Amino acid sequence: MPPYQNKLALKTQRTTEAIDITSEVTQMIKESGIIRGTALIYTPHTTTAITINESESGLLEDLSSQMLKLVPKGKGYKHDRIDHNAHAHIMASIIGPSVSVPVVNGELALGTWQSVLFIELDGPRSRNVLVQVF
Amino acid sequence: MPPYQNKLALKTQRTTEAIDITSEVTQMIKESGIIRGTALIYTPHTTTAITINESESGLLEDLSSQMLKLVPKGKGYKHDRIDHNAHAHIMASIIGPSVSVPVVNGELALGTWQSVLFIELDGPRSRNVLVQVF
Amino acid sequence: MPPYQNKLALKTQRTTEAIDITSEVTQMIKESGIIRGTALIYTPHTTTAITINESESGLLEDLSSQMLKLVPKGKGYKHDRIDHNAHAHIMASIIGPSVSVPVVNGELALGTWQSVLFIELDGPRSRNVLVQVF
Repeated sequence: MPPYQNKLALKTQRTTEAIDITSEVTQMIKESGIIRGTALIYTPHTTTAITINESESGLLEDLSSQMLKLVPKGKGYKHDRIDHNAHAHIMASIIGPSVSVPVVNGELALGTWQSVLFIELDGPRSRNVLVQVF
Repeated sequence: MPPYQNKLALKTQRTTEAIDITSEVTQMIKESGIIRGTALIYTPHTTTAITINESESGLLEDLSSQMLKLVPKGKGYKHDRIDHNAHAHIMASIIGPSVSVPVVNGELALGTWQSVLFIELDGPRSRNVLVQVF
Repeated sequence: MPPYQNKLALKTQRTTEAIDITSEVTQMIKESGIIRGTALIYTPHTTTAITINESESGLLEDLSSQMLKLVPKGKGYKHDRIDHNAHAHIMASIIGPSVSVPVVNGELALGTWQSVLFIELDGPRSRNVLVQVF
């Protein structure tokens, strides 16, 4: 069976935000027809990230606000000479561009409190997420 | 050959700790009979993480103590209105919920100093780790 | 088709640096002959990391300099009693030891601004990167 590949288009609304994309990814797993395998959820942008965490509104705000405390905007970064978003790039590498989740019995093996989160760090923008199941 | 999937149960002992699970994962790789592939080691919890690093007792303590310096407990996080562990969720997303390791000649392709580490960030609790080899 | 596995040897030049290895990895994807799958780029060292970001010279410096602000050298880490590089190990776990990238139409599905970056955190040294495509 060849890997299933699909793309999810998103329009982010804020400079930084965490968006729960679990239901869209879950739908693609079903479409793939794959019962046992791995899902790779990947962002092709350099100022966004993918993570897994609890989809609670307070926590979604805490995630990006704490990241901005760790990597504040405009602190004399060299990349800011070109484009004033070095902090967003650095935060993206700290969280990371993808997650891999086991697929068991045709479903993502997410734990009770786990959701797949897309993290916008330099929005608002039109963004894509690649979903691959194999 | 279908992917091999198994589960490792852990009882953590402290609020934060790093636990070396390399030998348990290595045993599962052998059980899988897979000679050449990838191992995905995945935690289904939102206040734990998986990483790879050196299994030296001092470093295992440094890892969680430095994470707590970066994301201290109780700093007015919004999620703390619901459950006083926002810091643990944020640390979990910074380290990440899984690692993928090549399997070469029937063994994890870990470097000389590498071990697979389970990171408890809001224990002590009963935890699981999913191990998949394909 | 069995997974393709190869190794890239690097000689790093500085204590910390980010090195763009996209062209070497891209060449290996071609060699693999795999049209649709996943590439796992993995470092077997505990004081290096792999990430994906923009290969802009200013940003490559910002990445390691900001990581050193978050995890400064020699801050009384316990591991430093053995080897004066606890900070490098901790930074490695924050960024992570690998990235997984979809392979679409025989090529890495990198976004316009994305490059695969090897992060040296305790150099200069001779290093390896494992590349697996399946």
